Amino acid sequence: MPSTAFDHVTLGQRVLFGSGAAAANVRTAVEELGGARVLLVAGASARATADELAAAVPVVHRITDVVRHVPAARAARAVEDARSTGADLVLTVGGGSATGLGKAVALATGLPIVAVPTTFAGSEATDVWGSTSDGVKTTGSDSRVLPKAVVYDATLTLGLPVQLAVASGLNAVAHAVDGFWAPRADPINRALGTEGLRALVPGLRALAADPGGIEGRERTLYGAYLAAVAFASAGSGLHHKICHVLGGAFDLPHAELHAVVLPYVAAFNAPAAPAAVARITDVLGGGPAGAALLGLKAELGGPPSLAAIGLREQDLSRAVALILPAVPPTNPRPVDAASLGSILRSAWAGDDLDEE
Amino acid sequence: MPSTAFDHVTLGQRVLFGSGAAAANVRTAVEELGGARVLLVAGASARATADELAAAVPVVHRITDVVRHVPAARAARAVEDARSTGADLVLTVGGGSATGLGKAVALATGLPIVAVPTTFAGSEATDVWGSTSDGVKTTGSDSRVLPKAVVYDATLTLGLPVQLAVASGLNAVAHAVDGFWAPRADPINRALGTEGLRALVPGLRALAADPGGIEGRERTLYGAYLAAVAFASAGSGLHHKICHVLGGAFDLPHAELHAVVLPYVAAFNAPAAPAAVARITDVLGGGPAGAALLGLKAELGGPPSLAAIGLREQDLSRAVALILPAVPPTNPRPVDAASLGSILRSAWAGDDLDEE
Repeated sequence: MPSTAFDHVTLGQRVLFGSGAAAANVRTAVEELGGARVLLVAGASARATADELAAAVPVVHRITDVVRHVPAARAARAVEDARSTGADLVLTVGGGSATGLGKAVALATGLPIVAVPTTFAGSEATDVWGSTSDGVKTTGSDSRVLPKAVVYDATLTLGLPVQLAVASGLNAVAHAVDGFWAPRADPINRALGTEGLRALVPGLRALAADPGGIEGRERTLYGAYLAAVAFASAGSGLHHKICHVLGGAFDLPHAELHAVVLPYVAAFNAPAAPAAVARITDVLGGGPAGAALLGLKAELGGPPSLAAIGLREQDLSRAVALILPAVPPTNPRPVDAASLGSILRSAWAGDDLDEE
Repeated sequence: MPSTAFDHVTLGQRVLFGSGAAAANVRTAVEELGGARVLLVAGASARATADELAAAVPVVHRITDVVRHVPAARAARAVEDARSTGADLVLTVGGGSATGLGKAVALATGLPIVAVPTTFAGSEATDVWGSTSDGVKTTGSDSRVLPKAVVYDATLTLGLPVQLAVASGLNAVAHAVDGFWAPRADPINRALGTEGLRALVPGLRALAADPGGIEGRERTLYGAYLAAVAFASAGSGLHHKICHVLGGAFDLPHAELHAVVLPYVAAFNAPAAPAAVARITDVLGGGPAGAALLGLKAELGGPPSLAAIGLREQDLSRAVALILPAVPPTNPRPVDAASLGSILRSAWAGDDLDEE
């Protein structure tokens, strides 16, 4: 059911999904794009996969030192590598950092990207790039950085230990949920986010119950993709603004941070967002929304609190001051310093949630 | 939940949706694309709307003689118009014929299209073009013909009389349903088709109950868009192959043809497509699937039979012979001359459906 009016941008992309099929699907995608000189970006943790893919397509250069947050100097060297080797396509293998470095190359050169994700981070489904210089992270969106093709192979996530996989998957849950009340939320991205949740929740439960099995990881990967598509379209809501500031100012681990904060933002917004609550509780099999998300995290063994992942209590008031100007004016419930402080303190302590 | 493997292509496109906002949204879309010399394609029935839009953007030429099925000679003149006037953007206003003529121009020139649909035909969401020469219709797909932006304004469909609106809406229902078992059906296009049905069914009921109201037309238009996106991705299933051949060989009205045939194809495939049946009956509030679709058509006052829309009984056996080679090998249930003949005869007579 449409709201009265919306402006929705669908990003065009090919998605090849199949467990154990990464090499064959990468070859298909690279051939369709006419790639004859491939720049391969793959960090140390993706080395074995990168070796296999390098045998399937014509690689002219390989970048193995992938760093978090795409430092500008690292990106500049990668761009120079692409130019000096005459690369005509960028193939990334890894999590958000590898994809991010590939995007930096695409932004500067216009080369097409084929992305092979090994986590549930979702960067491969967005046109958002990031670059860090002197400790300040700049982000932007540009159609050139959207991968032309994404190759999903759930067996590649088997290298992610269960705790990391759960945190990464809960980060994907946050893409879907925060999208429900994000600035550009519309009926289409809400539907995609809901479909993402419908795969993520059972997928993560299966993953936690059987970390070496493929089925849970496959459903989680599929749900993470849809959640990222929804998020790319809907934009950053209150949750992502909070996490962006906290992650940047206090250098907290990305996926764990999202996993911890989400239930508290959901509990806060719930009274003003009944349709979103219905979508969340319908998938989780009961409510209230914040408590249900907190229960999911506990059930999966996710991180308990911001304190546990490294935020110090004395930083809470500075965090409130930094976040407040970034709060989206479209948030369904007004946010002030007091309410924001209360959200952060609860997330810091890992409080239980007793919404009605 | 993913099937084991899929290859999904998402077509990138901007969608501006708002009742009464066509002129403002067309201006926004044309400006974003840098259109300074607009070729306007709008047939006689869209004249008033075209006048209004022509006041909002810089039109250098206007084509008003829009013909069904995009005759090649008509298309060639339109391409010549685009070139001789130095047009840099094509703005189409109307149903499938106007969009189709604009696509012919885009295919030859690479000019971007902004499409303003006034029916539920859905051509604006696909990269499929068509051209008719010496009575033979050729179709193909090309990324150049996918409109860069679509402007939906439900008030523009108010000119469609209720019977035509219902038939056009049931044609959209066929996009969603036939997509469930089409050759490239995958979890993503099935989810989009289901979401389309969830809007189309209540939308059409509201439209039929209050043809002059805007709410039913708005939901129907939104659902028709999602159904077209799903169809563009999933491809033509058995239903569309049947209708393509019947429409071409016997010159039957497009939307009415789809409205009549769908329930019989659904009833035939139902025993071999339980997941599709569940999606259909869930939205329609009960089953069996074919009977429920037939009931929806009757409730809305859709056309009763192929006989009623002009197919002669003596053409049925030739129709079977023409359709049989076009049956998708991926159809969930095998199709032979006898079963195809039985589907067509039931649709011809407008039989009741008594599936179990």
